[in-house]
Amino acid sequence: MLMSRIYNFSAGPAMIPESVLERAAAEMADYKGTGMSVMEMSHRSKAYIAVFESVENKLRKVMDIPATHKILFLQGGATLQFAAIPMNLMGGNGSADYAVTGLFSQKAHAEAQKYGAARLAASGKQSNFTSIPSKQSLDLDPRASYFHYCHNNTVFGTRWDYLPVTGDVPLVCDMSSSILSEPVDVSKYGVIYAGAQKNMGPAGLTVVIVREDLAGRALPCTPSVLDYAAQIKNESMINTPATYGVYLLGLVLDWVESQGGLGAMKKIAEQKAALVYDMIDDSDLYRSQVEPHCRSMTNVTFNLGNIELDELFVKQAAGRGMTTLKGHRATGGIRASLYNAMPLDGVRKLVEFMKEFQFNNT
Amino acid sequence: MLMSRIYNFSAGPAMIPESVLERAAAEMADYKGTGMSVMEMSHRSKAYIAVFESVENKLRKVMDIPATHKILFLQGGATLQFAAIPMNLMGGNGSADYAVTGLFSQKAHAEAQKYGAARLAASGKQSNFTSIPSKQSLDLDPRASYFHYCHNNTVFGTRWDYLPVTGDVPLVCDMSSSILSEPVDVSKYGVIYAGAQKNMGPAGLTVVIVREDLAGRALPCTPSVLDYAAQIKNESMINTPATYGVYLLGLVLDWVESQGGLGAMKKIAEQKAALVYDMIDDSDLYRSQVEPHCRSMTNVTFNLGNIELDELFVKQAAGRGMTTLKGHRATGGIRASLYNAMPLDGVRKLVEFMKEFQFNNT
Repeated sequence: MLMSRIYNFSAGPAMIPESVLERAAAEMADYKGTGMSVMEMSHRSKAYIAVFESVENKLRKVMDIPATHKILFLQGGATLQFAAIPMNLMGGNGSADYAVTGLFSQKAHAEAQKYGAARLAASGKQSNFTSIPSKQSLDLDPRASYFHYCHNNTVFGTRWDYLPVTGDVPLVCDMSSSILSEPVDVSKYGVIYAGAQKNMGPAGLTVVIVREDLAGRALPCTPSVLDYAAQIKNESMINTPATYGVYLLGLVLDWVESQGGLGAMKKIAEQKAALVYDMIDDSDLYRSQVEPHCRSMTNVTFNLGNIELDELFVKQAAGRGMTTLKGHRATGGIRASLYNAMPLDGVRKLVEFMKEFQFNNT
Repeated sequence: MLMSRIYNFSAGPAMIPESVLERAAAEMADYKGTGMSVMEMSHRSKAYIAVFESVENKLRKVMDIPATHKILFLQGGATLQFAAIPMNLMGGNGSADYAVTGLFSQKAHAEAQKYGAARLAASGKQSNFTSIPSKQSLDLDPRASYFHYCHNNTVFGTRWDYLPVTGDVPLVCDMSSSILSEPVDVSKYGVIYAGAQKNMGPAGLTVVIVREDLAGRALPCTPSVLDYAAQIKNESMINTPATYGVYLLGLVLDWVESQGGLGAMKKIAEQKAALVYDMIDDSDLYRSQVEPHCRSMTNVTFNLGNIELDELFVKQAAGRGMTTLKGHRATGGIRASLYNAMPLDGVRKLVEFMKEFQFNNT
């Protein structure tokens, strides 16, 4: 790693592999002899279409996306999809099931109520979102237009450790903070969507993977650029997409492949997460509120028992070149986000610091 | 200019000043000693908030935006605003006036019909969009929620040469292809909006300048991130904005200031446009369909009388390092887009080539 670079434990936007940044910098003013930056290319030009299609093909290959599913490169973040999903999919019977297991799934549930009956099929609120509802506890409507959940909860640091079984009801999943960190059986999903700014690239790009037969039932109030069927027909180019973001996703996918693909990413993610959780479990100072079976691999949350000590930890870590460790304002405490681009060495350095801090403060 | 760089006459995404690209490349892996790329910064971090606020302040200064108007950094392009504008502003009496003077204002008019009565206040269709309707011909509804027009028509190469007078009816203007190319009296407008990919930076960033008292009447179907009042309250951060695009806009604004600001940009734009229009007017080969009083400064459209010659022109120009001169599929012919970042030397080179091509082909 470049001497000047630091370990950034941000929950997103987050670290991007250094080799990706270096390649982006090298290609900034002249992409492969075209005489221009990718940023300057007309989205309808041959040069750019070649970039765009190659990124789509790479994503299809890396995630093993079946032909039944289309890939859309959109904008507006997962939060705009909180509206786009009911706009596109609630046209069936006007009702959908939502599992609320954290801050963002709660927001998705609230937004969906603008467009139909968004039922609460499960809620982690009683346990203060420290757990994922059990399979048995899901209150499913077999006639729901879809079942929505958020695979990994960035704020609370939980993760669904099972695939919800919903019969014919399509699974719709916000994978913003776990996409590309492990293999996924895409065929099981109706829609997978993710903001890019955690594991895929820069903020502003939103990836939507949609089972094609679900598109085409958008509500009349749906803006054209949010209409999946219209975007499928126009290959994500009803208007100018986030062209540079798509290019950067391509560089990130090249890097993921060079690391061994999603199977390898999962192994490294497990290894990184285990280092921190083992430290927490072996310690009297560090406390995790999350039930062990549903701990997040990408967002490790813990606290030190009192606010002053939490703050001292964050401050001293920053002094050692480990930043953005402060927990979300909804939880307090510490949050270490360990996305794909966080090197193993960064996690080792964090754990070393945790040991030292514990020694000095107990 | 770097030897390898070419003159790109694309209508957008389009050229970005070379010094901006160089600075972006230099700061890519380590922004001002922070140890990270701007792209990697949490949008809630002090370092990023400083970038974001400085860009907002720069835009306010460069465009001389009064305190009555808020600046929003959004996503989704002008096309998503085609929906957001009626969603936010039609709540008054459910009706709005639209002037249709080109492809994009036509799309805006069509999209608005999803949300209320979008009246046709003027249309350039009869003249095949080669002209802007006269002041006298505007059929205005004094009770309209707003009057919408597109200041510069990228496809047909026309430009409103007067400010529509609409009394108390707020002016809403798509300035995607003219923003930052000339001074604008922002106080005269209810909403000014623009996709960034022509004069402001990379695709994916959308700038909306809204008179604050117009916000707060959004229709119930409005997605949260499209609700102006909610975005004003959250300072464009209901969710993660296009963080890197905002940073690049800041670099572009620094460059605009270094050139002398919007007054200077207008002089250069007029000089560049005059070079090409003079060449056209003095020629028997090149023909402009646009009425002289409403010619665009940024998108010069012309043709050579037959398709084969148009194609030969585009092909030979590309061989000389002048690309993306092909006209839009709706018009055919040639289109030379001369946004701010197109150097005067690029336009001189184009005109030299036009002379030579004329000599060889007449």
